[in-house]
Amino acid sequence: MIVVMKVGAPEPEIDRLTNEFSAWGLTPEKIVGKHKVVIGLVGDTADMDALQIQEISPWIEQVLRVEQPFKRASREYRHGEPSEVVISTPSGPVAFGQHHPLVVVAGPCSVENEEMIIAVAQRVKAAGAKFLRGGAFKPRTSPYAFQGHGESALALLAAAREVTGLGIITELMDAADLESLAEVADVIQVGARNMQNFSLLKKVGAQEKPILLKRGMSATIEEWLMAAEYIMAAGNPNVILCERGIRTFDRQYTRNTLDLSAVPVLRSLTHLPIMIDPSHGTGWASLVPSMAMASIAAGADSLMIEVHPNPSKALSDGPQSLTPDRFDQLMQELSVVGKAMGRWSAELPTLAAV
Amino acid sequence: MIVVMKVGAPEPEIDRLTNEFSAWGLTPEKIVGKHKVVIGLVGDTADMDALQIQEISPWIEQVLRVEQPFKRASREYRHGEPSEVVISTPSGPVAFGQHHPLVVVAGPCSVENEEMIIAVAQRVKAAGAKFLRGGAFKPRTSPYAFQGHGESALALLAAAREVTGLGIITELMDAADLESLAEVADVIQVGARNMQNFSLLKKVGAQEKPILLKRGMSATIEEWLMAAEYIMAAGNPNVILCERGIRTFDRQYTRNTLDLSAVPVLRSLTHLPIMIDPSHGTGWASLVPSMAMASIAAGADSLMIEVHPNPSKALSDGPQSLTPDRFDQLMQELSVVGKAMGRWSAELPTLAAV
Amino acid sequence: MIVVMKVGAPEPEIDRLTNEFSAWGLTPEKIVGKHKVVIGLVGDTADMDALQIQEISPWIEQVLRVEQPFKRASREYRHGEPSEVVISTPSGPVAFGQHHPLVVVAGPCSVENEEMIIAVAQRVKAAGAKFLRGGAFKPRTSPYAFQGHGESALALLAAAREVTGLGIITELMDAADLESLAEVADVIQVGARNMQNFSLLKKVGAQEKPILLKRGMSATIEEWLMAAEYIMAAGNPNVILCERGIRTFDRQYTRNTLDLSAVPVLRSLTHLPIMIDPSHGTGWASLVPSMAMASIAAGADSLMIEVHPNPSKALSDGPQSLTPDRFDQLMQELSVVGKAMGRWSAELPTLAAV
Amino acid sequence: MIVVMKVGAPEPEIDRLTNEFSAWGLTPEKIVGKHKVVIGLVGDTADMDALQIQEISPWIEQVLRVEQPFKRASREYRHGEPSEVVISTPSGPVAFGQHHPLVVVAGPCSVENEEMIIAVAQRVKAAGAKFLRGGAFKPRTSPYAFQGHGESALALLAAAREVTGLGIITELMDAADLESLAEVADVIQVGARNMQNFSLLKKVGAQEKPILLKRGMSATIEEWLMAAEYIMAAGNPNVILCERGIRTFDRQYTRNTLDLSAVPVLRSLTHLPIMIDPSHGTGWASLVPSMAMASIAAGADSLMIEVHPNPSKALSDGPQSLTPDRFDQLMQELSVVGKAMGRWSAELPTLAAV
Repeated sequence: MIVVMKVGAPEPEIDRLTNEFSAWGLTPEKIVGKHKVVIGLVGDTADMDALQIQEISPWIEQVLRVEQPFKRASREYRHGEPSEVVISTPSGPVAFGQHHPLVVVAGPCSVENEEMIIAVAQRVKAAGAKFLRGGAFKPRTSPYAFQGHGESALALLAAAREVTGLGIITELMDAADLESLAEVADVIQVGARNMQNFSLLKKVGAQEKPILLKRGMSATIEEWLMAAEYIMAAGNPNVILCERGIRTFDRQYTRNTLDLSAVPVLRSLTHLPIMIDPSHGTGWASLVPSMAMASIAAGADSLMIEVHPNPSKALSDGPQSLTPDRFDQLMQELSVVGKAMGRWSAELPTLAAV
Repeated sequence: MIVVMKVGAPEPEIDRLTNEFSAWGLTPEKIVGKHKVVIGLVGDTADMDALQIQEISPWIEQVLRVEQPFKRASREYRHGEPSEVVISTPSGPVAFGQHHPLVVVAGPCSVENEEMIIAVAQRVKAAGAKFLRGGAFKPRTSPYAFQGHGESALALLAAAREVTGLGIITELMDAADLESLAEVADVIQVGARNMQNFSLLKKVGAQEKPILLKRGMSATIEEWLMAAEYIMAAGNPNVILCERGIRTFDRQYTRNTLDLSAVPVLRSLTHLPIMIDPSHGTGWASLVPSMAMASIAAGADSLMIEVHPNPSKALSDGPQSLTPDRFDQLMQELSVVGKAMGRWSAELPTLAAV
Repeated sequence: MIVVMKVGAPEPEIDRLTNEFSAWGLTPEKIVGKHKVVIGLVGDTADMDALQIQEISPWIEQVLRVEQPFKRASREYRHGEPSEVVISTPSGPVAFGQHHPLVVVAGPCSVENEEMIIAVAQRVKAAGAKFLRGGAFKPRTSPYAFQGHGESALALLAAAREVTGLGIITELMDAADLESLAEVADVIQVGARNMQNFSLLKKVGAQEKPILLKRGMSATIEEWLMAAEYIMAAGNPNVILCERGIRTFDRQYTRNTLDLSAVPVLRSLTHLPIMIDPSHGTGWASLVPSMAMASIAAGADSLMIEVHPNPSKALSDGPQSLTPDRFDQLMQELSVVGKAMGRWSAELPTLAAV
Repeated sequence: MIVVMKVGAPEPEIDRLTNEFSAWGLTPEKIVGKHKVVIGLVGDTADMDALQIQEISPWIEQVLRVEQPFKRASREYRHGEPSEVVISTPSGPVAFGQHHPLVVVAGPCSVENEEMIIAVAQRVKAAGAKFLRGGAFKPRTSPYAFQGHGESALALLAAAREVTGLGIITELMDAADLESLAEVADVIQVGARNMQNFSLLKKVGAQEKPILLKRGMSATIEEWLMAAEYIMAAGNPNVILCERGIRTFDRQYTRNTLDLSAVPVLRSLTHLPIMIDPSHGTGWASLVPSMAMASIAAGADSLMIEVHPNPSKALSDGPQSLTPDRFDQLMQELSVVGKAMGRWSAELPTLAAV
């Protein structure tokens, strides 16, 4: 923090302030100029509010934050190196991170029934996905809308995991479900609407399963990293960040605005792996392929894509889901950019020469 | 819902669709024109997604929503009449609603210690407030920031209630704290960050204490009313809506943008009482008085105002808190508009003639 | 500007920078602390870009702006006193400003024909308006929509002015029309879409007619004041600022979000008079009355309200226009808040006792 | 347009409405159902306002727009085929469009002096750019900031054109400069702040030089296409659309939010060529490379990139400019994605094998 004093601030007032800052456990460093005095505050200022400091004296002109408020999530915390989040799945460990091949997560919005979820799992596995996504508990705007099949859906995800060897990613909405969900999930998702449900963040931080943290609809990058910090401060270092579109003034042709610049911005600020969800990010299946291509080119470490055997009959989010056939084709199309970027695993499908 | 078919849509396809809609439990009403056919869908369409319906046939040109997706929260649900939420406090029942005098809620962001909370409670009571606000559990962006004193703060609120006779409004962040919090609180607040924490909404809907539901930072009016609908659908009809500023592109001179037009918009859409929080809504104490005046003139039923004995030492949200002296003065200033609007209770202070 | 150097910045580099800043015409003031050096930049930094300064040395940690970039528009420019913009109309001078009664501007979106504009002018005059608004040149999203009757409409406005004695406010879209428009208009409006049409700002700044400057749809308060600064720097000190709603994520029940906190924010930043346009600010006639009430309570100096004899037949913006009868009634309703705020001129109508 | 009548709307009222619609030149098509009547409006409804129609009868339940309001800009206007905008430059014609190789436009924000602009032109030409961008007239937030060298800068651009053979793209801010600017420019840019300066749009539509139309900071895709429609309706079919970042709530790490989903959205809506400007779109040079990569992968037809010989001394927009060396390297990096997407011209540089 930099505290800029007004011209003419009296010496005793400056002394009073430096004493006050010291009493807060900070090291104030007085910098005396010809006209003005500036006080630099060294120490644990992450929990301080610049606006609030400003009010402790009428002689303060402005208080300016210099440091980032996040620590464990910061790139500096790992001396500039990216972290990798390695997840053990029935088919072996899968690593998410800047120095690893792209990891594709696919599946339906909701788990609808056993036949459906296993069929989708088999198709996305064959197409190259490493993880199956599928909601057992669904956050829905309306209380009258389908809320997910809950615990019974968890059992179906477990079955799909066993049959295909895919890892499972599913969303936790209520801490009361944490135990049963963690038995099935290889990665626990915290959804956009719960990104600042701090109680939930603390609880998933206090257990061992890796966390997929979606960006809130109107969360700044800093707030998002602070949410990751909640999880990490509680003891869980395995956090994957997922951009899923932000809310802007234009919602006519896309449901959200996919903020792809989050990829290079996050890359410079944090060591955590970065996933992009072009399905929620755009809200329309027809826009998913180009945005998936762009995500890889922007440097994303992972993609999450909704696939449904029959999007028009989906119980939720049908319009943004691809069919398994379209997903097969997309994986081939993605190979072109994936290879160009050096992020395409040798075992993934590639576009057949025409 | 209105389903507009493309020109030339074949009769068998239209028949297939009407059968499909009937299978969903709806009553499709076919409207045949010279060039086009339109199918009106009557029934419980609140949980339906226009986008999704569109995908069930390539012959559908557009699907348009006509109905409001909320029911219990709608003005029509009470035949156009406003509801009143009557809260019993130690000093007797207090009613929130369009046909009642303005209710003022005041107090600090956080409960800091016994002396402080009782002192503030006495001051705001003397100035005309009917409820004391004060956080025991605080949602903070940083895990390293003060998180509230928790259960011990609840005991202090109980003490302030007993001493002053004020009703208590405090925020619930974790369903695990519901029972202990409900013992003290006369109104349970669901904060902006949890407005779409649907698990929490269902739980506060399944108990009896009235709920103060703050608008999410980027929640549309419709999403906000749907969040109220979650609570009401779970059985609790006593919901007060509180606008506290939305997130926009300009955050330089205000922390949020207070959306005062929410007052007349909500008035026409819902029967629920409407509160405005100009403290969070602007983020700066200096802006609170004019926005409080404007809120009353816009027709708000209640105001929530942050008051702290020493804002510069507040553990949270100091910059937006008024001192007790300033609050005294504000209450007198508000009397002028409050009386003009016919919403000023006879027992409230009035501006002394100069 | 405050330039914060990194720890360990070498002395020669600091010297190089101070020389560079001097060469730019600034007075650099070096403030040396134990660990860090900070350079304060005194002088004309309004045209400097903090980001840009940061790039002139890898040893710069951060550059922070301390000053406001606007001068003539700033409250300090008039030593804390509000300015008044006095407009001469056929009925005598009318003053806009903090220490003057509320000025009401009313009229249709577009001038449609002589009979209509004169009828509206007579009605709004009778109801207490001092100025007639009415578009001759209309900014329309579609090139195929009615673009205003242009020059011929100016003649009709002149006729209405003569008949009623009202001052005229009308929008300039093209500098080529400035001369003919200035012959008729008592106040020239620069619309939201042209708020950063800097060529136009310079031209209206170089003539004498007072300017009504509407806020751009996504303009920050600072950008808006900088647009006023363009006009003032070009020589015209008579600028009235008009808030007309900003663009946010929620456009379902209002076309724009009226930012009423702009009133107290502007009051502290600038001496210029402040007008609110609740008609464009909400987009719906039914919301105009409460927002007009709230504007007065918030401290606005002026209101602009759309009135149309037959809103359903209006060539533009019908849905947000009041009928003359509704406007009559509104003026009476407004008297209640206007008097309470001490801003209601004795000659204005008041609400008849019931 | 679809006009939905309320249940019980009387037959004479429906007849009155259909007559009214006919009088407007539309063909109303009455669709009679069991409970409701719906009136479809066929004809030129682009200039109609759904809200306005709604007010012509209290028996209208809702008016819904079905058609797109743009015509010449629509993909249908060219029967689904993309258009190509072919620009003649001293080095021969260059085509922008979906079926052509990527076109790169590069250069400084402002033309500063002859040596500088020619040096940059030579460097970007050597690196593969086909067009030089450079501002003679600069839109600046502050009237005190550098406003561009104006006419003299046009002469320097002409010199750079002659020396290098590059085409010239430069911004028009004032219709008064159109003639002199068109003498030098091969493409005339209309900037973001003037996207809805309808007078300017009409004037550039009435001349022959191709237009680069930047998206307004808070313009919806539809408003942007309507701005293109203004130009096309005035007679100029050669419009290139350029996305340059939109304004959102998060401006901490990027100046704007680059909306890359605009690429597939525009592709489906319009036949016009699509350019992306990642320099303004992010505001930071360090973010430009990944966003340029992503733009190509998303399917953009062209890139506009700011290059400055010494960004820290740039008179405007230094922080977002690349050095010529970094631009050389970027062009090689882009070749990888450009080739993968089949959009890399054989004459462009490619990444040397390591």
